Amino acid sequence: MNTKVWLVGAGPGDPELLTLKAVRALNEADVVLIDDLVNPAVLEHCTEARVITVGKRGGCRSTPQDFIHRLMLRYARQGKCVVRLKGGDPCIFGRGGEEAVWLRERGIEVKLVNGITAGLAGATNCAIPLTLRGVSRGVTLVTAHTQDDSRLNWRALAEGGTTLVVYMGVAKLEEIRQQLLEGGMAADMPVAMIENASLPQQRECRSELSRMHEDARAFALKSPAILVIGNVAGAAQPAWIAAAASA
Amino acid sequence: MNTKVWLVGAGPGDPELLTLKAVRALNEADVVLIDDLVNPAVLEHCTEARVITVGKRGGCRSTPQDFIHRLMLRYARQGKCVVRLKGGDPCIFGRGGEEAVWLRERGIEVKLVNGITAGLAGATNCAIPLTLRGVSRGVTLVTAHTQDDSRLNWRALAEGGTTLVVYMGVAKLEEIRQQLLEGGMAADMPVAMIENASLPQQRECRSELSRMHEDARAFALKSPAILVIGNVAGAAQPAWIAAAASA
Repeated sequence: MNTKVWLVGAGPGDPELLTLKAVRALNEADVVLIDDLVNPAVLEHCTEARVITVGKRGGCRSTPQDFIHRLMLRYARQGKCVVRLKGGDPCIFGRGGEEAVWLRERGIEVKLVNGITAGLAGATNCAIPLTLRGVSRGVTLVTAHTQDDSRLNWRALAEGGTTLVVYMGVAKLEEIRQQLLEGGMAADMPVAMIENASLPQQRECRSELSRMHEDARAFALKSPAILVIGNVAGAAQPAWIAAAASA
Repeated sequence: MNTKVWLVGAGPGDPELLTLKAVRALNEADVVLIDDLVNPAVLEHCTEARVITVGKRGGCRSTPQDFIHRLMLRYARQGKCVVRLKGGDPCIFGRGGEEAVWLRERGIEVKLVNGITAGLAGATNCAIPLTLRGVSRGVTLVTAHTQDDSRLNWRALAEGGTTLVVYMGVAKLEEIRQQLLEGGMAADMPVAMIENASLPQQRECRSELSRMHEDARAFALKSPAILVIGNVAGAAQPAWIAAAASA
């Protein structure tokens, strides 16, 4: 059966964090639809695919989701092997779920391939262990960006005791700070703000909850960036922090 | 500099979910220390490494952590390229943080390589999108297993509104259920319990919060397994669920 679409996570940016299954999908692809945030270096694994860029950048003009759906459907119905390449993991803020439903409802076989999500890679590259015995028994990944006006329960997130990793939060630092403080999180809770996670141009800004907004401005923090909020982001483990340069 | 140790995530089980960077580490390895939970199929990427199994299975007899530390150190000091291969991601319940600190304190260069964590792979293979617009704006990964007697704030986790992914929870289903119910989570909240995530022998048991303990027993659910608790685990998207067989 040829009418299939692969929804593939391209990982956080470092092209070596691609999985072997993603490489195989790119090998087999006739058509690749690639997001703006995907590192084009991963396209070296394509053999003879037609590559189409479908921009979807928060806050900027981007390709409408419906157009992407119909593009995938059209090529799949032509019998082409279609790979939809998404930054990170397709089901972590990647709309992989929506796209898979839409395609399946139209009789298209869908294969999903996980990818390394930017929050994990960014933290690891800054030598921050998102979980750590005696410090953090869990990690919560949330997006600050929403199109459905739902509100996160930041108070509960503050009380949950897990490390928080916030995607798409650069434009909402003030609001996030306020709500976490209201939720009872300590004003001096360590924060790491990581721009361009896993890429050579990765930059990190260390701060704390009460002044992360000001520090980010002074640092000229730009999207895409992730925030890591929690005790694991502190400098309590100097040797561990020192590992960052060599990792 | 040859005195280095790679702490590498081997992914959830499916050997194709290994990253290219992990493959490179295995290529270069002189010595590989492999956890029980890692699929030995990934060792095909070793060229001439000596492979040592260091069991660390929850609840069973296992290699003491200190012995693993000293083994890595000894080989690294001999100038060997050491790869410590861990299931999933080394910094998600993998003690990667601890091991990196310990080694760095002794002058060993440490490189960390992210892996696909079992919670994400298991959910994806069951066609459950951990985040979904209008349903879930985040995901929380927690471990039910603890060696430091810390307690999770399950009430806050219940209120946070994120999808919960619980690792090492099979022996604590009754306790988790009780605490989430006390936290106000709906008794009919959908639950998926996934055994052997991403492997051919993966099995899933669909249930709901109030009866997950009984259903798991009837299903003979075994460790290692992950629990996905949240509306995304429901059957609200039949076409999406139907995609499971082909993904």
